[in-house]
Amino acid sequence: MSQDFASRLFDAIDRVGNPAMVGLDPRLDHLPEPFKSAAQQGVEAAAQALVDYHCALLDVLADKVAVVKPQAAFFETLGAPGFQALARAVEHAKERGLLVVMDAKRGDIGSTSAAYAQAFLSGEVFPASDALTVNPYLGEDACEPFVRACAEHQTGLFILVKTSNPGASLFQDHGEPPLADRVAEAVVRWGEMVPHQSWSSIGAVVGATRPDELAHFRRQMPKVPLLLPGFGFQGGGAEGLDVAFDAKGHGAVVNSSRGVLWAHEREDLQHLADWQERTAVAVDEMVEALRAVQGARA
Amino acid sequence: MSQDFASRLFDAIDRVGNPAMVGLDPRLDHLPEPFKSAAQQGVEAAAQALVDYHCALLDVLADKVAVVKPQAAFFETLGAPGFQALARAVEHAKERGLLVVMDAKRGDIGSTSAAYAQAFLSGEVFPASDALTVNPYLGEDACEPFVRACAEHQTGLFILVKTSNPGASLFQDHGEPPLADRVAEAVVRWGEMVPHQSWSSIGAVVGATRPDELAHFRRQMPKVPLLLPGFGFQGGGAEGLDVAFDAKGHGAVVNSSRGVLWAHEREDLQHLADWQERTAVAVDEMVEALRAVQGARA
Repeated sequence: MSQDFASRLFDAIDRVGNPAMVGLDPRLDHLPEPFKSAAQQGVEAAAQALVDYHCALLDVLADKVAVVKPQAAFFETLGAPGFQALARAVEHAKERGLLVVMDAKRGDIGSTSAAYAQAFLSGEVFPASDALTVNPYLGEDACEPFVRACAEHQTGLFILVKTSNPGASLFQDHGEPPLADRVAEAVVRWGEMVPHQSWSSIGAVVGATRPDELAHFRRQMPKVPLLLPGFGFQGGGAEGLDVAFDAKGHGAVVNSSRGVLWAHEREDLQHLADWQERTAVAVDEMVEALRAVQGARA
Repeated sequence: MSQDFASRLFDAIDRVGNPAMVGLDPRLDHLPEPFKSAAQQGVEAAAQALVDYHCALLDVLADKVAVVKPQAAFFETLGAPGFQALARAVEHAKERGLLVVMDAKRGDIGSTSAAYAQAFLSGEVFPASDALTVNPYLGEDACEPFVRACAEHQTGLFILVKTSNPGASLFQDHGEPPLADRVAEAVVRWGEMVPHQSWSSIGAVVGATRPDELAHFRRQMPKVPLLLPGFGFQGGGAEGLDVAFDAKGHGAVVNSSRGVLWAHEREDLQHLADWQERTAVAVDEMVEALRAVQGARA
């Protein structure tokens, strides 16, 4: 990895021509067949089904999008075999030239955060992700080990600023200015600690279900890559997302998980022969919508 | 598990007669021999060394303390084999009658939190912990799946309210009242959702390095079990901890990790034959100090 994270991210987005990110949130009861049946034959079989499924899925995604976001939780439900399946999915994604943002939302006191950073960003044992999502609740000294790991390994972070869930405001909007604004200030500050070109390698998660807030956080964090979750299934559309992008179409990645992963269950796509084709259609729809948004700033 | 979490916790503490908790934070370069050398022979060997070490360590701890707190991060640095070693440590702890608080500080949007709760509290694949630490940043709907899992599995949580690291106040003290007070209110509220006897099954992490704050949070959360980290190595002593306990000596568990785990390196204990003896002395010292604190309220 010879470039800073944000440069690699936006180069990859330029190559595919869209800022779509697909979340890998494997729920066993929503896998397409034959993986769903295979996953019911015990833990080891389920973990193997996840490996086989993700290899096939990533082959569908590799030509269409630049970034995938594995969600650690769904792999962890299968214990160590699930963790191994996660490693294999990361490896396969990287073999296919995809960038990997590990969505594990880690965060702890300093020495423990350093261990999480080592686990996910160093590549010493687990295949290195290009970036990791981090929960900032523990504060500055808890986030800095992740930031230092980014400088060392030329990786990135997406720090939770404002999340996409309905109850996000309970704590994230607390105080005046709201807590999320304070976190945004820290994200900008931490970004200065990591060498980079134009965009910071320390990004932020900002819920795309509330476009009015997106403009606010873009002003707060002008050169911070934004991870916008919640496209599709969580109720977010493409409207209002254009404020996240600059004239080059850089500035954000927009994630859809269930909208893509569950496409094989869609009534309107049952005429298509297999789950790969249905998935491809769902990705194409997302890509089309996002290209329009991204292009609106050009 | 036939009792609510807090009842099991304080019964176990009554049996050993002290509220000490030992954190299992295995740093490979601080393991005692022969585990340290064994851990240098590759990932699988390191994971096996962790299994062997924790089995031996838990045998030392089992008669002395009631609760252990594995720190997931240090196991995750070894990838899937590390996750398997974590599972084995949890199993062995439970075989020895110890309660297990999984320190993984998970938290995500609702459906993902449900997956983490399934992973660590259901026992479906990974051996069930008695309780899990949870990061509240994402809000109410992000914490509730963990709370519901506690009602279903008679397990508990320790939600991060005020952590023990030097930079904790940056976000946790934001606003008026401080954010941590708002989280404390939520912890009390969430506790009412889980059937329990005297004490809530939804506990709180409150940094023991600042005893003045401890009294404040005890008033805020009168019947919430507190996990007090930072005894020993992080600079916390036994002074001021007495406010966390009631007249029965119930109300809190006090954690030490490095103070116990690194005892084998202590200059003043080199006359003792092996690491187990040195560890036992460190635990005895901690237990003694905490018995005095616990007894001060009786």
